[in-house]
Amino acid sequence: MPDWLNLPIKQLDHKTEAAALARQAQLTKPPGSLGQLEALAVQLAAMQGLEKPAVDRAAIVVFAGDHGIAAENISAFPQAVTGEMVKNFARGGAAISVLAKTLGARLEVVNLGTVNDPGEWPNVVRAVIAPSTSNFAVEPAMTEAQLAQALQAGRDSVLRAREHGAQIFIGGEMGIANTTSASAIACALLQESPQLLAGPGTGLDSKGVAHKAAVIQRALDFHRANLAQPLDVLRHVGGFEIAALAGAYLAAAQNGVPILVDGFISSVAALAAVRLNPDVRNWMMFAHTSAEPGHQRVLTALDAQPLLQLGMRLGEGSGAATVVPLLRLACALHNGMATFAEAGVSDKL
Amino acid sequence: MPDWLNLPIKQLDHKTEAAALARQAQLTKPPGSLGQLEALAVQLAAMQGLEKPAVDRAAIVVFAGDHGIAAENISAFPQAVTGEMVKNFARGGAAISVLAKTLGARLEVVNLGTVNDPGEWPNVVRAVIAPSTSNFAVEPAMTEAQLAQALQAGRDSVLRAREHGAQIFIGGEMGIANTTSASAIACALLQESPQLLAGPGTGLDSKGVAHKAAVIQRALDFHRANLAQPLDVLRHVGGFEIAALAGAYLAAAQNGVPILVDGFISSVAALAAVRLNPDVRNWMMFAHTSAEPGHQRVLTALDAQPLLQLGMRLGEGSGAATVVPLLRLACALHNGMATFAEAGVSDKL
Repeated sequence: MPDWLNLPIKQLDHKTEAAALARQAQLTKPPGSLGQLEALAVQLAAMQGLEKPAVDRAAIVVFAGDHGIAAENISAFPQAVTGEMVKNFARGGAAISVLAKTLGARLEVVNLGTVNDPGEWPNVVRAVIAPSTSNFAVEPAMTEAQLAQALQAGRDSVLRAREHGAQIFIGGEMGIANTTSASAIACALLQESPQLLAGPGTGLDSKGVAHKAAVIQRALDFHRANLAQPLDVLRHVGGFEIAALAGAYLAAAQNGVPILVDGFISSVAALAAVRLNPDVRNWMMFAHTSAEPGHQRVLTALDAQPLLQLGMRLGEGSGAATVVPLLRLACALHNGMATFAEAGVSDKL
Repeated sequence: MPDWLNLPIKQLDHKTEAAALARQAQLTKPPGSLGQLEALAVQLAAMQGLEKPAVDRAAIVVFAGDHGIAAENISAFPQAVTGEMVKNFARGGAAISVLAKTLGARLEVVNLGTVNDPGEWPNVVRAVIAPSTSNFAVEPAMTEAQLAQALQAGRDSVLRAREHGAQIFIGGEMGIANTTSASAIACALLQESPQLLAGPGTGLDSKGVAHKAAVIQRALDFHRANLAQPLDVLRHVGGFEIAALAGAYLAAAQNGVPILVDGFISSVAALAAVRLNPDVRNWMMFAHTSAEPGHQRVLTALDAQPLLQLGMRLGEGSGAATVVPLLRLACALHNGMATFAEAGVSDKL
């Protein structure tokens, strides 16, 4: 495995964090009355080393890849959709395209390999590893070399985002069948049963969910001897885009770029990254609780309390993008409100 | 009481609502996967009569007024703060000032009467009724004429907002002791006990909360014969800013301006408005669940599921303002995403 995985995670700036906390106490509002918006601003200050933090420049990277496990009939949509959606991202028609444009965020799509190849598109980085992973019901999803490529693709996207001055990194994903892979990874990392963690994904009925759980259970049994380490879990039952997300989170934490984690699949990648190095957790904020039922269990394992519970379950980074304006408002309030002294407002009795 | 209170509420446009719902089903995402963002866009479409709704122009009106009940020692901050905060709103230092500026929203402050009079300020409408309400522990908070003035001030603000093309109306409030008044109103309208609905407000300790509940209980006993009708409740235990909010909500629904309700105090005013005319509810969206413990009970009575639960408890319209970007993203997604046909993306299997 590549050496960069072992690079140290950047330390948070606790001095700036304390200064930001002290500033919050002086603003013209009852202490704590802005709730989580206060904590967000302080957290960003600690990450960015700035008493007045900012998230004007947001980088959104959507990793796309196909899954061999799709052959097991565990998705509500055909596999061709992965490639079709890459085009839709590039053309501006997808949810994440609209969100990125509305937010003025940089959107990059990384094509890690789709069965239905969309070819060259502007703002689509071709980092094709293979048309899809192998079917992990019957063999490892990836070779070691493929896993290293996927992790590297994630890191590369973070380094590009950093070059563009990103103040926050959002990873998204697209890949038909990837809730099956994500559920399998979560089961392996958390020692949970697929009956608990498999869900409807893009829209399976209860019979479909039961079949999906059974497919995952058989795969976990098949790979049982190779699921002790997080990298082995990613290799045997993972996906290119999930491994890329894990690599991106690790690299973001190494390079001091705050991370806003999206929904179920992203959180599973986040869990894998945190298992690789627990300090990665310091750089993560969690956007929303997905409607996918397994998400809450993964969030609990990460000790994460996301900001939104809107019943979203699209992926693409859409839940995280939706949170960007809240981070911006948190920063604006923290940076722009008057203190009691400045405003001549009486403090608490 | 003024005749305008009985004007009819505007009907929602159910034809446009159906068209917006049909559009949502064609967008390139699994059906329902944008969760509440989908419902918000459809709801706005029905209110605005536009298949592609918009909330670019938001009007925020903060009503400020003092409370005679403050004499009963039920607030963590001195009464002078109400007037001081009016200045802070006008100067741009308050939370709602920063939020409005960041959102590009129109902010109007309506001074209904403060003991510590801030005088004339730009963007502060002087609609002074009296320096404060009367102490409702020992007498009615308002005369009938004062109540009519407060309701009218709310309506006037909506008519001004409408003149400026407001696509959404946010009411906020400022008034030391106003959670005591709001709790008393909620108890009267819901037949609940103050022990259940009184909370810490700007920061009372548990002893302070118990005292506040006892003050409210005595006041409810004192006014018991005059709490059968919502207008009587507002007059006897209300506040100028709470009555103004109720009048504003009623006028917004009469004039077809969508309403985004803020936290505890605003929701109590919303409940009063809905009790005056149940159809007002059709025009309301609910922004957030306040940390003030009585809020959930009021939301339940209004059958409201707010969008955010961030532990905010500031008032001023700050929770509602925080939701504006989510409404804008909901509209952008609804209006800007490609359909399956447009994007050449395969639909569900």
